Amino acid sequence: MDALIRDIYKMPAGQEFEGFFIIENVEIKKHRTGEPYLRLIVSDRTGTLPILWWKPPKDADLTIFKKGDVVFIKAYVELFQGNVQPKIRLMRHAEKNEFKREKFIRSSRFNIDEQFTKLLEIIETIQNPYLKKLLELIFYDDEIASAFIKTPGGKFIHHATIGGLLEHTLGVVEICEVVAKRYKSIDRDLLITAAILHDLGKIDEYSIDMAIDRTDEGILLGHIFTGSELISKKIDEIEGFPKKLKIKLLHCILSHHGEYEYGSPKKPKTLEAVALHYADALDSKVKGYEEHIERELGEGKGWTKRHFAYEVPIFFDGEISYEE
Amino acid sequence: MDALIRDIYKMPAGQEFEGFFIIENVEIKKHRTGEPYLRLIVSDRTGTLPILWWKPPKDADLTIFKKGDVVFIKAYVELFQGNVQPKIRLMRHAEKNEFKREKFIRSSRFNIDEQFTKLLEIIETIQNPYLKKLLELIFYDDEIASAFIKTPGGKFIHHATIGGLLEHTLGVVEICEVVAKRYKSIDRDLLITAAILHDLGKIDEYSIDMAIDRTDEGILLGHIFTGSELISKKIDEIEGFPKKLKIKLLHCILSHHGEYEYGSPKKPKTLEAVALHYADALDSKVKGYEEHIERELGEGKGWTKRHFAYEVPIFFDGEISYEE
Amino acid sequence: MDALIRDIYKMPAGQEFEGFFIIENVEIKKHRTGEPYLRLIVSDRTGTLPILWWKPPKDADLTIFKKGDVVFIKAYVELFQGNVQPKIRLMRHAEKNEFKREKFIRSSRFNIDEQFTKLLEIIETIQNPYLKKLLELIFYDDEIASAFIKTPGGKFIHHATIGGLLEHTLGVVEICEVVAKRYKSIDRDLLITAAILHDLGKIDEYSIDMAIDRTDEGILLGHIFTGSELISKKIDEIEGFPKKLKIKLLHCILSHHGEYEYGSPKKPKTLEAVALHYADALDSKVKGYEEHIERELGEGKGWTKRHFAYEVPIFFDGEISYEE
Amino acid sequence: MDALIRDIYKMPAGQEFEGFFIIENVEIKKHRTGEPYLRLIVSDRTGTLPILWWKPPKDADLTIFKKGDVVFIKAYVELFQGNVQPKIRLMRHAEKNEFKREKFIRSSRFNIDEQFTKLLEIIETIQNPYLKKLLELIFYDDEIASAFIKTPGGKFIHHATIGGLLEHTLGVVEICEVVAKRYKSIDRDLLITAAILHDLGKIDEYSIDMAIDRTDEGILLGHIFTGSELISKKIDEIEGFPKKLKIKLLHCILSHHGEYEYGSPKKPKTLEAVALHYADALDSKVKGYEEHIERELGEGKGWTKRHFAYEVPIFFDGEISYEE
Amino acid sequence: MDALIRDIYKMPAGQEFEGFFIIENVEIKKHRTGEPYLRLIVSDRTGTLPILWWKPPKDADLTIFKKGDVVFIKAYVELFQGNVQPKIRLMRHAEKNEFKREKFIRSSRFNIDEQFTKLLEIIETIQNPYLKKLLELIFYDDEIASAFIKTPGGKFIHHATIGGLLEHTLGVVEICEVVAKRYKSIDRDLLITAAILHDLGKIDEYSIDMAIDRTDEGILLGHIFTGSELISKKIDEIEGFPKKLKIKLLHCILSHHGEYEYGSPKKPKTLEAVALHYADALDSKVKGYEEHIERELGEGKGWTKRHFAYEVPIFFDGEISYEE
Amino acid sequence: MDALIRDIYKMPAGQEFEGFFIIENVEIKKHRTGEPYLRLIVSDRTGTLPILWWKPPKDADLTIFKKGDVVFIKAYVELFQGNVQPKIRLMRHAEKNEFKREKFIRSSRFNIDEQFTKLLEIIETIQNPYLKKLLELIFYDDEIASAFIKTPGGKFIHHATIGGLLEHTLGVVEICEVVAKRYKSIDRDLLITAAILHDLGKIDEYSIDMAIDRTDEGILLGHIFTGSELISKKIDEIEGFPKKLKIKLLHCILSHHGEYEYGSPKKPKTLEAVALHYADALDSKVKGYEEHIERELGEGKGWTKRHFAYEVPIFFDGEISYEE
Repeated sequence: MDALIRDIYKMPAGQEFEGFFIIENVEIKKHRTGEPYLRLIVSDRTGTLPILWWKPPKDADLTIFKKGDVVFIKAYVELFQGNVQPKIRLMRHAEKNEFKREKFIRSSRFNIDEQFTKLLEIIETIQNPYLKKLLELIFYDDEIASAFIKTPGGKFIHHATIGGLLEHTLGVVEICEVVAKRYKSIDRDLLITAAILHDLGKIDEYSIDMAIDRTDEGILLGHIFTGSELISKKIDEIEGFPKKLKIKLLHCILSHHGEYEYGSPKKPKTLEAVALHYADALDSKVKGYEEHIERELGEGKGWTKRHFAYEVPIFFDGEISYEE
Repeated sequence: MDALIRDIYKMPAGQEFEGFFIIENVEIKKHRTGEPYLRLIVSDRTGTLPILWWKPPKDADLTIFKKGDVVFIKAYVELFQGNVQPKIRLMRHAEKNEFKREKFIRSSRFNIDEQFTKLLEIIETIQNPYLKKLLELIFYDDEIASAFIKTPGGKFIHHATIGGLLEHTLGVVEICEVVAKRYKSIDRDLLITAAILHDLGKIDEYSIDMAIDRTDEGILLGHIFTGSELISKKIDEIEGFPKKLKIKLLHCILSHHGEYEYGSPKKPKTLEAVALHYADALDSKVKGYEEHIERELGEGKGWTKRHFAYEVPIFFDGEISYEE
Repeated sequence: MDALIRDIYKMPAGQEFEGFFIIENVEIKKHRTGEPYLRLIVSDRTGTLPILWWKPPKDADLTIFKKGDVVFIKAYVELFQGNVQPKIRLMRHAEKNEFKREKFIRSSRFNIDEQFTKLLEIIETIQNPYLKKLLELIFYDDEIASAFIKTPGGKFIHHATIGGLLEHTLGVVEICEVVAKRYKSIDRDLLITAAILHDLGKIDEYSIDMAIDRTDEGILLGHIFTGSELISKKIDEIEGFPKKLKIKLLHCILSHHGEYEYGSPKKPKTLEAVALHYADALDSKVKGYEEHIERELGEGKGWTKRHFAYEVPIFFDGEISYEE
Repeated sequence: MDALIRDIYKMPAGQEFEGFFIIENVEIKKHRTGEPYLRLIVSDRTGTLPILWWKPPKDADLTIFKKGDVVFIKAYVELFQGNVQPKIRLMRHAEKNEFKREKFIRSSRFNIDEQFTKLLEIIETIQNPYLKKLLELIFYDDEIASAFIKTPGGKFIHHATIGGLLEHTLGVVEICEVVAKRYKSIDRDLLITAAILHDLGKIDEYSIDMAIDRTDEGILLGHIFTGSELISKKIDEIEGFPKKLKIKLLHCILSHHGEYEYGSPKKPKTLEAVALHYADALDSKVKGYEEHIERELGEGKGWTKRHFAYEVPIFFDGEISYEE
Repeated sequence: MDALIRDIYKMPAGQEFEGFFIIENVEIKKHRTGEPYLRLIVSDRTGTLPILWWKPPKDADLTIFKKGDVVFIKAYVELFQGNVQPKIRLMRHAEKNEFKREKFIRSSRFNIDEQFTKLLEIIETIQNPYLKKLLELIFYDDEIASAFIKTPGGKFIHHATIGGLLEHTLGVVEICEVVAKRYKSIDRDLLITAAILHDLGKIDEYSIDMAIDRTDEGILLGHIFTGSELISKKIDEIEGFPKKLKIKLLHCILSHHGEYEYGSPKKPKTLEAVALHYADALDSKVKGYEEHIERELGEGKGWTKRHFAYEVPIFFDGEISYEE
Repeated sequence: MDALIRDIYKMPAGQEFEGFFIIENVEIKKHRTGEPYLRLIVSDRTGTLPILWWKPPKDADLTIFKKGDVVFIKAYVELFQGNVQPKIRLMRHAEKNEFKREKFIRSSRFNIDEQFTKLLEIIETIQNPYLKKLLELIFYDDEIASAFIKTPGGKFIHHATIGGLLEHTLGVVEICEVVAKRYKSIDRDLLITAAILHDLGKIDEYSIDMAIDRTDEGILLGHIFTGSELISKKIDEIEGFPKKLKIKLLHCILSHHGEYEYGSPKKPKTLEAVALHYADALDSKVKGYEEHIERELGEGKGWTKRHFAYEVPIFFDGEISYEE
């Protein structure tokens, strides 16, 4: 029985539990006697927990436990000034196959394989041979494809799940299809290609070992640049790819955050770029609101706390639902 | 033959023409001899033209010509310092039925009756009896309906045509349907109702006699307030309309500009409100870009001048097309 | 003797006290033995206090104590790690008439009845019959009047007291009188009417049961809209009320926050509107500074902490005084 | 008869006129024959006028006419392409006493001597001996006083008249008196002193020879600094002036623009400073709106053009009036 | 004798002149007789000039003259309403070698060859073998080098001359050397390399045929992206180039505009990036001020007009000097 | 042995230590028995520490220990809930000469005497006799000079050390020398004088008794004003100092923060002012980044926490070094 941290907080003092956790912080402390003990903060996807290894075995090498390690713990609940602070009986590193990563990071609510098949089907509908070739070069590249289907859409704000990037990409494509159908002046193939590729750079922006983290590359360069650069490189492998088409496609990627203050080095200057920007905003904001509601209210109703990025509290009295 | 101003500019000196025009400005001037003459600026939907009535009949009452009047003019082109400045041979007020208002103001590219029928069909799909009742109260009210189908979406920035409000409303509804289908947590009936009603207040914001103009009410109160107030009044006529539903609907209207700096007294604080805001932004920005391209490039390609509101020049090398 | 929380913090360990408090937070916890105990945070207008009911009677139904309840408590002080954390001997719900609401929420420093009389006298000075009629319709409506005299001016920033709205309204009126006297181009009756009504919508924005709270309506719609709507409704009951006057009055209400970023859907576009906006700013900022000084320094002198809304610390070395 | 430019524009071709004007721009041009002629733009307080000296006397030294000179002109109206462009018959420099400066710059609507007397009376009411002494040192200094009563409140935005600074100062003092009376925690003497001195630095910021202009000192240093420095210097002449009082007074001056973006090096951090800032804003904004209405609408009604600084058009349908 | 437009404006009516000019605008107009004539606007680096070809030869093909062509013109000055508007006697296309491009676009005040030699010497001082290799790959590539030495630093704001990029690059390097010497924690080789490469992308951003223009690529993608991409490509040609070094270098390029609002997709997050940003700002702002002074005041002194980007007028009473 | 707080945190429970500390906060508490004890927070330059005097001598006057006092303490470590909270055995006030101020506040990494000598040498290079005289008046004034060499550059953001102002001043001068050498249009003497004096006002802005603190004068008036005023006063002591030079110098001081939002009452409007602003920004930002790295990473590498003012985390993998 692999206990969730959310549940441990509800246990009475004295109750025993066990499970797999990630070490978020670890310090070796000393008792007055000089004997060492461990003070840890551990986490799973439901929260974080302070916990003490008060009496480790005399001969234990406590220095082997590092931030980021997954450990197996047996412990019992203690209340310290009315707060939960369990004490460990036994702790060891976990084996790779003992636990499920889902304990630490949520997955997209959609089936990833079905979603990816849907993406490939959309690629089939592209008429422009250069754009189609480009998409095939990218998504039939196993390395890129396998990274793409796992990458989250973000760390906190929206689509912060395994597969979140794929889910978000399809959401944006759906909206762009409606717009391209209504506005015939739009180059539909260009818009859909841009929608599919707009966040491609995120495959280098996030690492998802046990938790979603931003890579140094992500923080220092950003997905707008790394995505544009990757697309540019792939285009250069396609003979005869029209230069103007390349510029128009890259412009969509470079401007899709819409405003400079969101890290867009360019503002949208074509019909396709402006459509992509607002379609992206629409899908990500709605999802961001929904994830905040889920995180804050669970299955309850009423007001959330102020959203740290959108700067409003959110009111919800419906049902969170993913049923088709 | 009712000449368009756009064409008069291309005529050689001496060419005769005639047609209907709106007086934008008129001054009675005097020749050195003391004889009066008229200096006018006239317009139609293709532009404005300076023109002189150099030798009006001795007994003519020149004071009867006022700003805003529609007049019939016969004249010939003169070049003054290489600039076109025609001289009038004859000028009189136009009769109501002599000319078509389309000469002065463009209409939506869509068929207004078909569009309105489509709107009524969408109302039929609303399941929530209170919201459906509300929409019926509004759109089966002949006065409101006949204003609604003529009102423009704006004066300059987007959907600046007769019927533009109806066209924009359906554009926003289309996008909202996709979003509501993807995000099941959204109350679809509430979102679609809000989308239909979001710009209702514009029926009081614009006057469209011969040109689109903002009313005093529009400038001093604004469509966000007048629309919300009208909806609130109509809701109060419906027995048993749930108070919370009223508040949630009005919140969508009051917050649909999204940010305070765009005159929204509230920022979106529900799923439906945030979806409406970005769907509105998406439809209006794409249309605004398209109208700017048409206005600036006609059937040409390349770069427009900087858009006065979006603050970028726009690049376009496709075809403006409204074909289904 | 009804102890104030501010004083409990100064008591030595072991001292007994009793009094009425509001429950801000309550959790049922379990001792290691499985026996339940209560962990509460309670408040009065002088602060908040953590407190434990360590050993409630065996047969007590602990689930009856809810957030927001007013309770009578007998307890004694304990120091836990040098911090005050009293233990409860006895706790029960309070009867309606046992306690004074003033323990929980402060009242305006002015006498409410005198202030309201003053307001009615000002209404008498209005010459314009339509505006006078409007004010009478509103302030001789018992329901509105009795709400108006109790409503606070705000939750935190300024006039956060019972009767604060009335106090602030008179402050703004006083300033407007000086301005109207100096600037003869101003329509004095319009300005004074707008000043009296500018925050009327706050009667729906705040609930003041035991503490000042914002209603759902307040957060989702806001007092600018609800006030304007109420005034509009009342105007429509008055025969012959000039439409232009209605628009000018509502414009004052809609624009009185002055800038979009403060939730004004309109910026001031008339002399009266601009005068009202700055008179409102003047009275509320001075009061906001004063309340911050009182809250932070008590009767002391020197620097306050940074004001959370005005973003500066405030320096004060005078005497807070309300003497006439 | 000294013609106003506003009236010359309404004259028929051929009409003779004469009057005094300031040269705004002057160019010596050559006819094809090589003969020189002058092309000028001249102004008075009602507008600007292009005018030609087509045939100056053969032996005239045309280089003596410079920008900023006041000249006497005799001329007759010519219409050039329907535009007014008079031709000069005779032009010479004006003598100092031939013309009135009021032709070129408007004066405050209030009587300057009465206003200054009122200011001195207010100074009498100050109880604090140091502040009173300071005000006396400043306003009984003839050089400062005679500059103070002439200086405008600004070049364009508000109180742009001779005596405008004095008028504005009294307006701010009046408002501050109301506030100090209502809020007893305010140090009334400090507030009134700060109100009297808040724009003192403007005596160095503007030059008013024939028109209001900003000095180099005004543009490079600004009245906030020069005023504060002058006050500081005067304080240092007063024995025993308390240092804390000096700092509090200078803080009011340094922060009276309220926000950094208006060139305030400090934000208000005392009750007196915040009251002064908003009282200043109130008086100057109302006056700025009123002056814009006068300039734009004259005695008419309706909408002005967008105000260049306040960024809104203004609606006015009352009467501009200065009657007591 | 190749006349400068600046001088033509000072010629008397009737004077003959000849020279080479770029066509900025051209329209074929018709006389009342139906005969065609040309209306042109032509330019050189000193300004623009309206000019007419009133009587072209009967058999001339007027359609061969296009915007952007360089033409040879013989003409004489005519004054039209006191304005200069010459008439052409003869016009033909210029041969490539007949004229000097310096007539149309200014060059850097520094000797380009000497400057480039200096740059190569600086490259010699780089100790880090990877960075040195990278710089050699780029600057010993003839195509890049020959573009680099001609490219301007900008179109309007600063270093808007042939060779301006090279001049600005050295200016930034000089400042960075001082900073790297003072702050030993800085990686000097990395900073100098980043300084040398920071605006490399401008070689694709501007076209300088006869005038400086921004390319479509420049407007749609921008030099920050194209430069970073080119550097990244060159790095990938160097075996063993450390990945972290690549990321740190690219981060400097991507963040060198410092703030999002200036199109930086990243804000500086390393010592080298922050140093580069402010060194770039320092060199470009000083140069931008200086160029504005030269353009506005020529050899005069006093105040310039408000700078369109820096939003201030500039005061200068020194001597513009480039002497060593 | 004078223990550093940084080291006390690493001691095991029970270890004895002694040393000098500043009292940051002190409260007299009571045991249940009614006996008093002290709860303190003490600090040195390496951090802050909670500490208890659990059993002070019966007859001790505990009220003599005040915030800001330097005390000598003997104590031993106790762990309270795993946290360090030592208990005092003995505490008394420190004598002036017992401890070194360096324990509480860091000094500039440069030798202050050498730096000041360097400053005097730079003053020698000024050719303009008025500017040289001004600098001599200021820096040969012992009171100013001795304040100047001790004053920090800031409280937190950059150069927060004794002597930091001197260090920063020289850094800015160095950069300005490079710029003045490159841009000959700059008045080098004016720029260097402005650079030397730009932060002079900080001698009144900070108090550095045992820690750096801002004075009331600093918070209410600011160094931009007090510095400008002091310079202005000194200039007035120099006979014949040109007025225009005074204005240009003061303009540099008043505008050196560059933008209104950083408290600059003026934006730079001369070449010297714009150069000074960016040189100041460059030196202070690089130093600010470096100090943040040191504070956060010590001798480690990687990412710091987000900088509270620059709003980014900083990446560093080099070596902090001050070696020449």
